[in-house]
Amino acid sequence: MKYSEMSKSELLKEQEEVRHLYNQFKSRGLSLDMSRGKPSAGQIDEALGLLDVVNSKSGYKSEEGINCLNYGCPDGLAECKKLFGEILDVPAEKIFVGGNSSLNMMFDYILQCYTFGASVKSEPWSKQGKIKFLCPVPGYDRHFTICEYMGIEMINVPMTATGPDMDVVESLVKDPMVKGMFCVPKYSNPTGVTYSDETVRRLAKMEAADDFRIIWDNAYVIHDLFGKEDKLIDMLKECEKAGNLDRAVEFASTSKVSFSSAGVAVLAANADNLAYIKRRYSFQTIGYDKINQLRHVQYFKDLAGVKRHMALLSDIISPRFEAVLSALQKELAPLEIAEWTKPNGGYFISLDVMPGTAKRVWQLCKEGGVKLTNCGATFPYGKDPEDKNIRIAPTFPTVEELADATELLIISVKLAALEQLLK
Amino acid sequence: MKYSEMSKSELLKEQEEVRHLYNQFKSRGLSLDMSRGKPSAGQIDEALGLLDVVNSKSGYKSEEGINCLNYGCPDGLAECKKLFGEILDVPAEKIFVGGNSSLNMMFDYILQCYTFGASVKSEPWSKQGKIKFLCPVPGYDRHFTICEYMGIEMINVPMTATGPDMDVVESLVKDPMVKGMFCVPKYSNPTGVTYSDETVRRLAKMEAADDFRIIWDNAYVIHDLFGKEDKLIDMLKECEKAGNLDRAVEFASTSKVSFSSAGVAVLAANADNLAYIKRRYSFQTIGYDKINQLRHVQYFKDLAGVKRHMALLSDIISPRFEAVLSALQKELAPLEIAEWTKPNGGYFISLDVMPGTAKRVWQLCKEGGVKLTNCGATFPYGKDPEDKNIRIAPTFPTVEELADATELLIISVKLAALEQLLK
Repeated sequence: MKYSEMSKSELLKEQEEVRHLYNQFKSRGLSLDMSRGKPSAGQIDEALGLLDVVNSKSGYKSEEGINCLNYGCPDGLAECKKLFGEILDVPAEKIFVGGNSSLNMMFDYILQCYTFGASVKSEPWSKQGKIKFLCPVPGYDRHFTICEYMGIEMINVPMTATGPDMDVVESLVKDPMVKGMFCVPKYSNPTGVTYSDETVRRLAKMEAADDFRIIWDNAYVIHDLFGKEDKLIDMLKECEKAGNLDRAVEFASTSKVSFSSAGVAVLAANADNLAYIKRRYSFQTIGYDKINQLRHVQYFKDLAGVKRHMALLSDIISPRFEAVLSALQKELAPLEIAEWTKPNGGYFISLDVMPGTAKRVWQLCKEGGVKLTNCGATFPYGKDPEDKNIRIAPTFPTVEELADATELLIISVKLAALEQLLK
Repeated sequence: MKYSEMSKSELLKEQEEVRHLYNQFKSRGLSLDMSRGKPSAGQIDEALGLLDVVNSKSGYKSEEGINCLNYGCPDGLAECKKLFGEILDVPAEKIFVGGNSSLNMMFDYILQCYTFGASVKSEPWSKQGKIKFLCPVPGYDRHFTICEYMGIEMINVPMTATGPDMDVVESLVKDPMVKGMFCVPKYSNPTGVTYSDETVRRLAKMEAADDFRIIWDNAYVIHDLFGKEDKLIDMLKECEKAGNLDRAVEFASTSKVSFSSAGVAVLAANADNLAYIKRRYSFQTIGYDKINQLRHVQYFKDLAGVKRHMALLSDIISPRFEAVLSALQKELAPLEIAEWTKPNGGYFISLDVMPGTAKRVWQLCKEGGVKLTNCGATFPYGKDPEDKNIRIAPTFPTVEELADATELLIISVKLAALEQLLK
């Protein structure tokens, strides 16, 4: 029965029962973590062979004969660019291979635009007054904290089932002080939404400042689940078609393919942007770790190899998503007090609880033994205006732990809703 | 016989002989490279075992049980901090472990000061007008190009046998627009000079702007040659003693210990600086490659292990230095047309030829088949005011190649001097 259709006495009775369940759960003294998008031990173990392909006997030369243990080749190995070109479906010559962290590459790129301008022709963002970024919400906290660090004002844009609300985006971006926008276009963090072709094209085409830049964080480009696969069109090509060649810079990594602290990160960009970014890197470093690039290429070989590996990871992750989704469906759907996404890939489920109760749910979970992502983390400044969004990160715990954690989460969602309704 | 004591006819005769030698050499059609401080293949091979210590069967946990293939531990592994603490002779808690490149860490730190200020209390350098850096010369080109990229004015400070000329430094640094200074305090690039205790203390004590920062690039801290070892006192401690706690930030890496593109880089700083820098990193990245940290610690184990390894490298490098130094001594010393350094460690020999002839020497070497470091590279803006300095990088070629390259270099130094004297 829906809570909205219950009488006060029915609600009170329900509250008593749910509180009983809560106390029962709490007394088990569990300590579980659903807070961060971390791979599980099993995922990491699937890639352990990567540690063996390069060794003291294997040689350390690239296909072009480059010594991967010495200086040189600052843009990355040709075969590594080729592999990421296949993964991102962009020409290899648009790729720059960096260190282990695409977040690091985004931070450095945004800081470059901030301090030195987004192109050779444009003024530094920092010299143009109070600049702004558009932030589809809910979104990725570490995007938002880059803006916070640099003092860039963030404007929320609601996510829809096809990506950010493009009417809102097109209207806001007319403001010349809007200089950037974060997008996780495939299996978006945390909603799991993949941007529709129309959304991508509108982003590429819309009127915006010359030095407006889209941070196209394609973190989950090959992170399919359940044997399904969303399709995303090539943003860089759409920008070319629209004549806004430098509008977007794309980022990706193997942090959730191979290893989360020892993967390979890349960016991809159209010609002028790429030259402008490479110039900065030529001052910033002599070059990134090529032997780890070689390891990745020798282990995965090509896109087919990467996809075979991602299928192994999907076998590990899909049941975890399923454990959460089926419990939510069974326990919460009939009550109509919450909504959640059912993504075909990525790392998260986005749960909207009864407005005004997310913080209370978080607190109840914490006291009951389950750590959730901090409330508000999916919004700029950590402020969820409706206090309703909870990001569920199902990858790290075991299926059994997830079943327990989801049980407490569901009890807490109910309890917080009942408290709210009985106020 | 000294060239300065030769008559014109003697000089002409000498020129004819040297030109003959030059043409003879040129006809051999060699192609040699003494231009960059790159390890030789043999040096790299000495460390190949490092590739084996972490593998699919070895485990991937740190001493504290941290999974080195997953997120977490953003400051670096405790055992890695400990190892670098021993190498740099600073407490481990002053260390932050970064990626593969100390240059990258310097660039990022200088950019942080430039855009956001050198401390929580200070104005961004970029908002204070035309700021300046002191650059001991000859010095490291990649330091200078960081300043060029950011538009920071560079002021030359002459190097002496005990470090930069401290009278000049103390005078220049009174200008509050002087915000920084590059120092390679041990086996300096390219002179090989190690700063004396007095130099270090004067740098720590001198009057300077609150947000003046010394980039203490301790790149060659353990890079002894010939079984000798220069001593350098701890700059961070001297800054503490002098009450200028935040004056210096120290950088180092294993780029010339293990592998030049796959080593580990660190910085070390006193408490406030360290907290300020770590805060930036907490926005910039989730963390650096910990498995490569683990590889290094498991392979080298401790300072004694690192020193044993450096002794192996010295066995490879010392004969190369010796090949150059003995030829210079034999062929050039009697003529009194050049001076050079005889370092106890590091990667370079700094050769001063007859003023006004360095570019000509470079050109003659190039046409004869030997590539030298670009003339002027050891000075800000690539401008050697006396056109006399040549950086010799003896590590990469074989001893035989070095003998050849040095032969041509010596011939070219003579020929250019003779042309100059006969003008």
